[in-house]
Amino acid sequence: MKAGDRVLCSPGREETEGIFIAEREGMAVVKLKSGYNIGVTASDIQFIGAGDQNRVSPPDVIQNPNLPLFSIISTGGTIASRVDYRTGAVTSQSNAEEIIRAIPRLGALGQYRTRQPFTTLSENIQPSMWMDLARAVYEEITNGARGVIVTHGTDTMAYSASALSFMLTTPVPVIFVGSQRSADRPSSDNIMNMLCSVAAAGADLGEVAVCMHATANDDICAIHRATRVRKMHTSRRDAFQSIGIPPIATVTYPNLLVSTDRDAIRRASNEASLADRLEERCSLISFHPGMSPAILEGYRSCRGIIITGTGLGHTSTELIGIIRELIEDGTTVVMTTQCLRGRVCDRVYDTGRDLMAAGVIEGEDMLPETALVKLMWVLGQTDEPDEIKRMMQANLKGEINRRSAHGL
Amino acid sequence: MKAGDRVLCSPGREETEGIFIAEREGMAVVKLKSGYNIGVTASDIQFIGAGDQNRVSPPDVIQNPNLPLFSIISTGGTIASRVDYRTGAVTSQSNAEEIIRAIPRLGALGQYRTRQPFTTLSENIQPSMWMDLARAVYEEITNGARGVIVTHGTDTMAYSASALSFMLTTPVPVIFVGSQRSADRPSSDNIMNMLCSVAAAGADLGEVAVCMHATANDDICAIHRATRVRKMHTSRRDAFQSIGIPPIATVTYPNLLVSTDRDAIRRASNEASLADRLEERCSLISFHPGMSPAILEGYRSCRGIIITGTGLGHTSTELIGIIRELIEDGTTVVMTTQCLRGRVCDRVYDTGRDLMAAGVIEGEDMLPETALVKLMWVLGQTDEPDEIKRMMQANLKGEINRRSAHGL
Repeated sequence: MKAGDRVLCSPGREETEGIFIAEREGMAVVKLKSGYNIGVTASDIQFIGAGDQNRVSPPDVIQNPNLPLFSIISTGGTIASRVDYRTGAVTSQSNAEEIIRAIPRLGALGQYRTRQPFTTLSENIQPSMWMDLARAVYEEITNGARGVIVTHGTDTMAYSASALSFMLTTPVPVIFVGSQRSADRPSSDNIMNMLCSVAAAGADLGEVAVCMHATANDDICAIHRATRVRKMHTSRRDAFQSIGIPPIATVTYPNLLVSTDRDAIRRASNEASLADRLEERCSLISFHPGMSPAILEGYRSCRGIIITGTGLGHTSTELIGIIRELIEDGTTVVMTTQCLRGRVCDRVYDTGRDLMAAGVIEGEDMLPETALVKLMWVLGQTDEPDEIKRMMQANLKGEINRRSAHGL
Repeated sequence: MKAGDRVLCSPGREETEGIFIAEREGMAVVKLKSGYNIGVTASDIQFIGAGDQNRVSPPDVIQNPNLPLFSIISTGGTIASRVDYRTGAVTSQSNAEEIIRAIPRLGALGQYRTRQPFTTLSENIQPSMWMDLARAVYEEITNGARGVIVTHGTDTMAYSASALSFMLTTPVPVIFVGSQRSADRPSSDNIMNMLCSVAAAGADLGEVAVCMHATANDDICAIHRATRVRKMHTSRRDAFQSIGIPPIATVTYPNLLVSTDRDAIRRASNEASLADRLEERCSLISFHPGMSPAILEGYRSCRGIIITGTGLGHTSTELIGIIRELIEDGTTVVMTTQCLRGRVCDRVYDTGRDLMAAGVIEGEDMLPETALVKLMWVLGQTDEPDEIKRMMQANLKGEINRRSAHGL
């Protein structure tokens, strides 16, 4: 059987027609008319007709040199996948021509350079890859890109975007974009998100951001500040939310009109700068009732620890002794809140004051994940305790809101 | 100077009049007319007049034996505090008479028994205290309470309420209630929350729930199913939210009308039952990029581990080896999602399938904190692996939604 052949498969009681894609270890992948791929025992499928082997070659893509130049950096996320409409197989695309071919309208918005520093499932991204990515983005900016688009898996996109915020100071937009539904599904968000991300990359923005569906409809993408965004749903297309601030911009679809928030950072004339060193030996610890001090002993090798405490930023009193020991051994410990929203304040209750007396740094209203990435970066820049504390409590890239944004 | 004396304090440039409350270690606590307490260096305050030392004794409280009987169980939260209106000091109240005296309207809603199994800041609650609390609630129900109100600090209230859900099957409402702002602040939510919790305790409900402000106004309290509620803001009065389902009821204020959701569990005629054994050696681990396998080595003493994975429930591939070892050593590992909303599905991507092959149990759409408490309870009931898995994936107390509640 060849990819593209029409087959009849009978995995359950009902027979279903589909397109054969591939076979591996006795399992056949078949694309159904609904757009979904299913896995079927190979012996359960039956050839009913040859696929169209005389597919027309794709047209040549000619980039328009009069349009603004964007760089698309691909790291392997679903968003960068392309469907072969003959077989339905989802394959990775690696150059601008393929992307423009998959989303022809892109050709009217700009001309594109692409690069692919690595390809991985985003749950396998390591801080060392953030360094590679930051360098790639930096080079693209210094080589004249009007904006950079980073395609990325959604699992850890917020971590990566936040990391690049700290590592890179950019005069142009650096827009991370992902897709919650792969291109072979009727509800895929990849085309709209990609087009909106290019619109955002051409807009009057000068910071690192994330572009994803703002609603359950195909009407608006939100552009989220990288240090304030969080994936808040496993599967919804509007899973990404700005926490504590509104999105810095929105892009309407299909007309691609960008509206920027008054607090968005604008394009600037300064050059990009890069500070890409990270201390990877950092951890995030969720406090919970019943957590024993012995668990914290396992974190002695860490140079930095973010705790997500309860409420205003608390742990149980019995943990404070080991936390003090870790700090005395040179580990930086920063308190954030598992509430996610609102500000840490360890001055109100006894437990908080005891944590501060032990040397714990209040993480203000930083998201725990942003605080982790920031701590990796800060410890990569300095090992002087006062400077570490000053930097962790300073608003460097919009990660801390001084104003209390009531209602967000 | 005596508590209650009028004083002039000049901590900054401006002089402010207030009521002296107490002095400790050279710092005086002064209540301002705004209702806030401030700390001032004792030498900065000046006596200007004696307080009213001839305060009228509080009236005797007579409970109405014709009203339904409720039990109020106090565990030490802000909600159970009482303000001395002469000095402004916040003190803990321990019996029904004091509570009714502080909130006179309660006397028109019911008659009350009270007990106080322990008093602690809620961040110091331990699973062993959940056992004490569950037993106390159980006794109150079997002794005829029409409903039980548990006053509790908000930091870990959702954990405790969730724990009681699993330990206790109740034919009457068990309503946890807290307060985000202490009684000495003009914006305190303690009186409204308390009144609404008693209304909920008298309503047609038969489950464990949490009663807190539903909005930023003093108009509605939400009654949240204990296994689906989470504190989502450090300081807002409407910090508690139902995740994945709507609240099971609402109570309007001040008229105390209860509306129940069609999916709420109703009062029943069966007796309460108690299964209070817990396995405390359980931990919650937040996966993040850069987490090293060595960190997981520190969790070898755990009998159960909840991981909050990324997206649909992933960790990096390099952690799967040590996770497999932990499971082979007899530790139960359950995957939840740091997105908080949506369902874990480890069948979609390779990393997820590898985690399942290693023996990780999919935590469906359970909140991570609920999954942790449930795992403590399940491991207290059985040590048979298949039964542990079956129970973790069964919906026991509304912690798992089979339907996909779109938009929640």
